[in-house]
Amino acid sequence: MQMSERISGFQASPIRRLVPYANEAKRKNIKVYHLNIGQPDIQTPLQVLEAIRNYSKKIIAYGQSEGELELRQGLQTYYRSFGVEIALDDIMITTGGSEAILFSLMTLCDPGDEVIIPEPFYTNVGSFARSAMVNLVPVTSTMESGFALPPIESFEAKITERTRAILLCSPNNPTGYIFSGDEFALILDLAKRRDIFIIVDEVYREFCYDHHMFTSVLKYPEYAERVIVVDSFSKRYSMCGSRIGALVSRNHNVLEGAMKLAQARLCPPDIEQVAAIAALQTPIDYLQEVQKEYQKRRDFIVNGLRSIEGVKCTIPNGAFYLVAKLPVDDAENFAIYLLRDFNLNGETVMVAPAEGFYVTSGLGKQEIRIAYVLNTKDLERSLVCLEAALKSYPGRTI
Amino acid sequence: MQMSERISGFQASPIRRLVPYANEAKRKNIKVYHLNIGQPDIQTPLQVLEAIRNYSKKIIAYGQSEGELELRQGLQTYYRSFGVEIALDDIMITTGGSEAILFSLMTLCDPGDEVIIPEPFYTNVGSFARSAMVNLVPVTSTMESGFALPPIESFEAKITERTRAILLCSPNNPTGYIFSGDEFALILDLAKRRDIFIIVDEVYREFCYDHHMFTSVLKYPEYAERVIVVDSFSKRYSMCGSRIGALVSRNHNVLEGAMKLAQARLCPPDIEQVAAIAALQTPIDYLQEVQKEYQKRRDFIVNGLRSIEGVKCTIPNGAFYLVAKLPVDDAENFAIYLLRDFNLNGETVMVAPAEGFYVTSGLGKQEIRIAYVLNTKDLERSLVCLEAALKSYPGRTI
Repeated sequence: MQMSERISGFQASPIRRLVPYANEAKRKNIKVYHLNIGQPDIQTPLQVLEAIRNYSKKIIAYGQSEGELELRQGLQTYYRSFGVEIALDDIMITTGGSEAILFSLMTLCDPGDEVIIPEPFYTNVGSFARSAMVNLVPVTSTMESGFALPPIESFEAKITERTRAILLCSPNNPTGYIFSGDEFALILDLAKRRDIFIIVDEVYREFCYDHHMFTSVLKYPEYAERVIVVDSFSKRYSMCGSRIGALVSRNHNVLEGAMKLAQARLCPPDIEQVAAIAALQTPIDYLQEVQKEYQKRRDFIVNGLRSIEGVKCTIPNGAFYLVAKLPVDDAENFAIYLLRDFNLNGETVMVAPAEGFYVTSGLGKQEIRIAYVLNTKDLERSLVCLEAALKSYPGRTI
Repeated sequence: MQMSERISGFQASPIRRLVPYANEAKRKNIKVYHLNIGQPDIQTPLQVLEAIRNYSKKIIAYGQSEGELELRQGLQTYYRSFGVEIALDDIMITTGGSEAILFSLMTLCDPGDEVIIPEPFYTNVGSFARSAMVNLVPVTSTMESGFALPPIESFEAKITERTRAILLCSPNNPTGYIFSGDEFALILDLAKRRDIFIIVDEVYREFCYDHHMFTSVLKYPEYAERVIVVDSFSKRYSMCGSRIGALVSRNHNVLEGAMKLAQARLCPPDIEQVAAIAALQTPIDYLQEVQKEYQKRRDFIVNGLRSIEGVKCTIPNGAFYLVAKLPVDDAENFAIYLLRDFNLNGETVMVAPAEGFYVTSGLGKQEIRIAYVLNTKDLERSLVCLEAALKSYPGRTI
């Protein structure tokens, strides 16, 4: 019996294909350093864990479909802290940033509609688009330009009658690029001229390095009607497993549409919302410490990678990912080699082949994404493994 | 700027339309008895609350997309307790039964595909179908037949080339009907002959009264390939806010398809899964007490309703809902009247107009759904209000 075309047409994720090899390596007692997934090793704020331990309700009842008022109020205050004034009604709590992306796509798009997105991009956006039967139309950003916003003309050239939105992520997963105010001005102007929406995933907004500044797309009230922001507690407070995010828009039709989807699934998880309310009380120095730690890791990994012969990477200004180009025939084969055929004193590395971050076929074949979510000691071990593996890998190109 | 047709075509829920009236009544300090939503007043098992308070992880990290192993193992043992043997790989944890319904529809159906469903049915199925752009094709079950399975020929008559599944709920929300083994035999035979799937929502399986027995569709291994079961912890353990459910199927293609959707949203919420693991350790007498309590409530509400002139209802054998026919011109108007124009010593009742539980236009106009989730004292007050309101309501038909 056939499954739907929707499902059979899902792009297979190269990371998923690697999992059996990683499991096999672990069975052989090889230590695998996970640079393949954005799961930070940073501890969740103590306030959050304490709030969970103080959970005092007697009945874990349905909450509000738009999320608990206290949590929305907390987010409102938080947005104010970086100069953005948002009405309470413009904030909806979602089950992870994931749900905010899915709700945005479903609210704006019908099957066959198009959303333009710079590639490489966060792989799961492809899955949400497929779920909604929306076509992602890529505009390629390049390592040579530091993964900056591609020329605005290349976006405009892709706009058709079915285009509903442009989807950006800043600071960017997987490139680490932070879109500038000038870039947003260009893209918002285009959106207005061509009457489409701008969806921006801002979940990495605290992770900016070297005095690079994050610009929120919410800071352009004159374009308020066409802007949707995706937010999440996962990375900011190292609570990825909580699945609490938000959809923010000053366009009431968007919120009203998304509410229909929210009401169907009743409410976001309750205990996790209690945890998230506490997260917003996290002292500022927690986030500052985390930012410092990632800056250190970024410097460490960039220097390390660039000292390996034939490896190229840009310096990411934000988030905790980077895309590196390797001197190999095929990055996925190399990633499999690392797990299946290689180990250095019982250790190896798992990386994400970048092909899955592109729609355009053939792109990213020599690239990997690295999530520098491990401490520098582990990053150092990872770099040593990577360098050794690049020397012994049969498909090396230098 | 237009939203998608997907969203603008969402059937407006009559319950949602009532919410502003309920809020207004509360502002006027009128006590509103909520018989409109399946939010039990039963306390969550102490073990669950204790497990939350003992949450001991330092990092709330991403978990497995298919759910935590311990929770899946717990469910496996639980299914065994009612004679169903399920492999671990056939159980996926979802974010509420809601997600299991959405995943089932998306895995089986493309936009424009059809799913046959007896009406009246759980309203939110309509929203999930709309999200997936699937058409629900109703077969009407009637109060006269006690909302039993309509003749199998009426299902067969609705099967087209685009039919992918029949979706049932047993014990049923909103009718309280429990499908018999004979009824499942008929429907499964039809599914096999016409090569379609059977999706069954079994989330109320512990709520059966008067020695009526629940039959699980998982007990027919010869039809294993075409069966999907939707499960949830919400009602069983009075933890609706936790949003933990499950999708169960012995068809590996279904699980593999649903896994693509599960991987995109990363994982179900972690703390709530810890709570759910503890829920499965709930002593059997908790569920027995709850069952007894609901049986008492059911008897109370059915007797009370039937003693009101002109009110008709069947005796529901399971779940905690019933559909009642009222001597009114329009049940939604009456429900609004209850909230806006009526109160008895500062009290009133909120009920769900049944029209939203039907696809076929015009059906359910004189019907309401009652969720008997309140204690008998509150149910008694509700009945007194209902009777008085039916006497004063201008649109009464007797």
